[in-house]
Amino acid sequence: MAAQYAIALFGAGRIGKVHSRSISDHPSTRLKYVVDPMPGPAQTLADSYGASVVDEATALGDPEVAAIVIGSATSTHADLVEKGLKAGKAVFCEKPIDLSIARVTACLKAVMDCSAPLFVAFNRRFDPAIAEMRRRIMAGEIGPLELVTVISKDPGALPIDYLAVSGGMFRDMTIHDFDMARYILGEEPITVSAAASALTDPEIAGIGDIDTACVTMQCASGRIAVITNSRRASYGYDQRVEAHGALGTLRTENVPITMLVQEREDGIRREKPLFFFLERYAESYRREWDHFVRVLQGEEKPNPTGEDGRRALLLAEAAYHSLETGRRVTVVEMEGG
Amino acid sequence: MAAQYAIALFGAGRIGKVHSRSISDHPSTRLKYVVDPMPGPAQTLADSYGASVVDEATALGDPEVAAIVIGSATSTHADLVEKGLKAGKAVFCEKPIDLSIARVTACLKAVMDCSAPLFVAFNRRFDPAIAEMRRRIMAGEIGPLELVTVISKDPGALPIDYLAVSGGMFRDMTIHDFDMARYILGEEPITVSAAASALTDPEIAGIGDIDTACVTMQCASGRIAVITNSRRASYGYDQRVEAHGALGTLRTENVPITMLVQEREDGIRREKPLFFFLERYAESYRREWDHFVRVLQGEEKPNPTGEDGRRALLLAEAAYHSLETGRRVTVVEMEGG
Amino acid sequence: MAAQYAIALFGAGRIGKVHSRSISDHPSTRLKYVVDPMPGPAQTLADSYGASVVDEATALGDPEVAAIVIGSATSTHADLVEKGLKAGKAVFCEKPIDLSIARVTACLKAVMDCSAPLFVAFNRRFDPAIAEMRRRIMAGEIGPLELVTVISKDPGALPIDYLAVSGGMFRDMTIHDFDMARYILGEEPITVSAAASALTDPEIAGIGDIDTACVTMQCASGRIAVITNSRRASYGYDQRVEAHGALGTLRTENVPITMLVQEREDGIRREKPLFFFLERYAESYRREWDHFVRVLQGEEKPNPTGEDGRRALLLAEAAYHSLETGRRVTVVEMEGG
Amino acid sequence: MAAQYAIALFGAGRIGKVHSRSISDHPSTRLKYVVDPMPGPAQTLADSYGASVVDEATALGDPEVAAIVIGSATSTHADLVEKGLKAGKAVFCEKPIDLSIARVTACLKAVMDCSAPLFVAFNRRFDPAIAEMRRRIMAGEIGPLELVTVISKDPGALPIDYLAVSGGMFRDMTIHDFDMARYILGEEPITVSAAASALTDPEIAGIGDIDTACVTMQCASGRIAVITNSRRASYGYDQRVEAHGALGTLRTENVPITMLVQEREDGIRREKPLFFFLERYAESYRREWDHFVRVLQGEEKPNPTGEDGRRALLLAEAAYHSLETGRRVTVVEMEGG
Repeated sequence: MAAQYAIALFGAGRIGKVHSRSISDHPSTRLKYVVDPMPGPAQTLADSYGASVVDEATALGDPEVAAIVIGSATSTHADLVEKGLKAGKAVFCEKPIDLSIARVTACLKAVMDCSAPLFVAFNRRFDPAIAEMRRRIMAGEIGPLELVTVISKDPGALPIDYLAVSGGMFRDMTIHDFDMARYILGEEPITVSAAASALTDPEIAGIGDIDTACVTMQCASGRIAVITNSRRASYGYDQRVEAHGALGTLRTENVPITMLVQEREDGIRREKPLFFFLERYAESYRREWDHFVRVLQGEEKPNPTGEDGRRALLLAEAAYHSLETGRRVTVVEMEGG
Repeated sequence: MAAQYAIALFGAGRIGKVHSRSISDHPSTRLKYVVDPMPGPAQTLADSYGASVVDEATALGDPEVAAIVIGSATSTHADLVEKGLKAGKAVFCEKPIDLSIARVTACLKAVMDCSAPLFVAFNRRFDPAIAEMRRRIMAGEIGPLELVTVISKDPGALPIDYLAVSGGMFRDMTIHDFDMARYILGEEPITVSAAASALTDPEIAGIGDIDTACVTMQCASGRIAVITNSRRASYGYDQRVEAHGALGTLRTENVPITMLVQEREDGIRREKPLFFFLERYAESYRREWDHFVRVLQGEEKPNPTGEDGRRALLLAEAAYHSLETGRRVTVVEMEGG
Repeated sequence: MAAQYAIALFGAGRIGKVHSRSISDHPSTRLKYVVDPMPGPAQTLADSYGASVVDEATALGDPEVAAIVIGSATSTHADLVEKGLKAGKAVFCEKPIDLSIARVTACLKAVMDCSAPLFVAFNRRFDPAIAEMRRRIMAGEIGPLELVTVISKDPGALPIDYLAVSGGMFRDMTIHDFDMARYILGEEPITVSAAASALTDPEIAGIGDIDTACVTMQCASGRIAVITNSRRASYGYDQRVEAHGALGTLRTENVPITMLVQEREDGIRREKPLFFFLERYAESYRREWDHFVRVLQGEEKPNPTGEDGRRALLLAEAAYHSLETGRRVTVVEMEGG
Repeated sequence: MAAQYAIALFGAGRIGKVHSRSISDHPSTRLKYVVDPMPGPAQTLADSYGASVVDEATALGDPEVAAIVIGSATSTHADLVEKGLKAGKAVFCEKPIDLSIARVTACLKAVMDCSAPLFVAFNRRFDPAIAEMRRRIMAGEIGPLELVTVISKDPGALPIDYLAVSGGMFRDMTIHDFDMARYILGEEPITVSAAASALTDPEIAGIGDIDTACVTMQCASGRIAVITNSRRASYGYDQRVEAHGALGTLRTENVPITMLVQEREDGIRREKPLFFFLERYAESYRREWDHFVRVLQGEEKPNPTGEDGRRALLLAEAAYHSLETGRRVTVVEMEGG
């Protein structure tokens, strides 16, 4: 068996478990360390994969560790990115690097001279349908792009305690759609307009958050992207992307649980979409890890990068600014952020 | 055979032919007169249905004429609405009443005291799928509405000569989508934001028009509607409406030419959507005439009304104003129009 | 207005009404006579179209009558075909010519020398999807055919009184599928095997009929066709045809009432198929009349013909013989019938 | 980590690799031995999972081995089933136990008194859509069954050398569909009729095999099942099952590679089905191993069993007998086999 890259995981929560599985399943990587303030979950996760629970310094100080995976609380991301890269470790960071655009910008500046690679995990880019859509657009299958539509609805709002510290829907949820829009557009949006409401739950209005929104962006070429969001789709996780070009469209439909169809007197019924991101993007998580291993092997450049993470956050900032001012906001206005 | 309502048709063009067929097919109506400045087409159309070509005064002066159908050039609509209603005729008017909101407002004021009914022909409301969607929303099938999406793309831009006098895409094409959004929302939008580009043809930019757009509207309740438009969908007429409520969604998909499927090495291919509005909304044209006959019979109130026509135009005005100012525009601002 | 062919209709029942409408709607034909033993329905139907109720002799004796449409009771078909053709009238005969293959064969022999055309109304051939499927198969789109599948289920059994005189499911219902198989195969089946049961209703077993069946046919080239039938599909009229060739398949799916989709917690629900043959094949009835008019005008040969009607019945006979004997039956065995 | 069952795998070919992966991925099993006459592939496979290459006697003689997986050449299956069960090992046997019904019957008789469990791997029963379909039928969702349709087409014939020793299409390919029909029917077929041809490749006719077929079965209750097969579907692996009951149908559609849709001037194109059984039934292979582990743990009875394997082969025998005799063949006739 070939040598394996040793990986240190920060964060033993839900997403940490997903990445542990990928690390373990991949023939070129193994989980060496788990770092988490909660000793119980850390030990359980470590035990499942023959890893050890250690503190941050041990993990970052072990020269065998090739890369760190940051799946801990958002507030710890930027610091860990800096420490990891400065320790010469490749970094796989869950989005976002930080909820503050200033902090993200500072972080990226601080690590500018580090040679180790930084990957920011917008997992949807690795969905087989999305990746294939992008490949075909680049290959000219639908001609020059004109209009991109991203429909993204969660099956139900997360707990209010989570939402209260989430940074708000645009930074927590729409951030994925901003990245998706940039990925599919193949061009940077320069203006952003947003409309939003809190309709699904009075508690969401209570914490000053939103749950229903439409964000429109425009590029220098004139091409337009529109994102539609809801925190609550009773039929499940609704994830659709549509690209309209001069020669046609490419669009991804929801992935049903199975292809079973029921035909009865009350109609023709198909299965609901796969329940939520863990189910819907299971394959994406595997593929993003494959990509990261190829980055470790020097075969690919990290993609998306820290700058991609910053750009998505800039769009979220612009969307909030548009909500407040009622204006079409330019992205450059936000750079001061 | 029961007595039939005699109908006078203004305009012997494409849409005039559609209505002549409906008038003739309906057991309760017959085409008595055709009025058109072009004698050739008028005579041909009149001959097909045993009607006579007459001038405006004759048509409006004949006490046997129960109703007039206005399918002539847009610039003639408002005058004919006024003359028809003042002559005591029921009026079936193709949208829009006028391209100027001031003229529309004046026209509706001028006929305020007329007792004859005025119907403004937003034919899509009569599409079986759309009408059923609306019925079910009203019946609570998807709970309180939160988000309405209207996707509307033409199969290809109309001749530049037509576009030059069309009033612009928002007044000419999106007007249908503004009405659709109002119809499905069941609540009046109070703000409008728009983004638009001319991407499909340099000639369109040349006349100062647009061909690709996204318009977002918001109601007092917070519910949001978004319209996406293109003048050119290479695969045909793309007409989709999606309503998202607390309990689920209702959406209409495109109607394919047939349900034929081809499965080959190069993929699984289905038929394109029905080509354009005459094909896609053939049944809607029949049903809107059935409705108008029931209006003549006193069984139903006209719906949509002149005010519905004015409201859709107000939204178009607001969309243009948003384009120019980069602002979220309130509909009340436009009332001064 | 051009001269119109005068048509005499035999049978003022359900199918007579369908054809009356087509006759009236077509610019080149008009309904002149209705012949029916029931004076009430005959008069009502005649009145709707400005026709007269007359007896058979009058209808057949009027030199102005160009064609007769036979939509009367099955037992009258063969006689009327003979009388009509011998009187020099073009004949449009509802399937079947007779329930007895001997009678059909005798009838066709009796009219062999008549120059007027005989059309047997297998309406499904005129369905836009089916006709397009056939056109594309002929054009080689899926290469040489290998396998044809016809799925045909009624939404619910007809009244037992009707079934008792229907000739049995294979002659009454499957007859359409036998014709469809022949039409799509483009080659004559030479053997037939059948399996059948009475499962949906004890009354059907009580009259010795069947309601659930599978019939397999094979051609000299080896290509195979299979028909699956049920008298009762709770979700509606199920009409699907699938052709498998060396280069792929062509298949027709059911036509839903509308393209409306409901997405809720209990699944993704689409509309049921159009209810029954009058709805599903409305366009086919119009198109088969257009074809018959072109036959009257000498522009096309009748298709399907009397021989097509006889061939479909032969396959039904073979299917019954297979049920009884448990054997794969050759079609030539049935010719003695 | 809990103790794991040690597994010995017979056969290091394609299917052996699939099972090795499942054995390794499951927390309760590990691959201990690989047995294969070809030392190269055996060693490669063993190395990937830390297993050893040994001979049959060693594998069967090691008391630590809890179960054997038989994925070797068909001709070795029956002997290995006998040896494995007599050695007290649980047996997971790829279908078929043997191509000769007499040998299968003898084998099952020989192991009648063995207490270790025998599982015959008809993997499709573990497909999530199929398993859910069966569950819902059992739960009465579509009422009493009347008609079962299995459409099963391979994407292209296997090499002629393979086919020459495959036992013929009914024993090699349709065997899965016979099992599927039995699984869905929930009742034993008592008669079988078959029609078949060799149409896709003259070489197939050359070895006396078939590639296109339709098999009809009937149960004592009258319910009917029909299987349609082709060895060559140019668009890929076509796997559909449809169950029709008194209250409606349940059917499984093909699983597309992704849910990507392309809309262009030449039509609306979706992705082809997943290429072949390894892709289409990847999840089924995982789930059948989960089931087998629960059998090892004494939590479930093996299902399907050796008798299920014999029953499917009996139906294949009956289908061949029907082809030869042109008769509807009873399954009891085959028991003498």
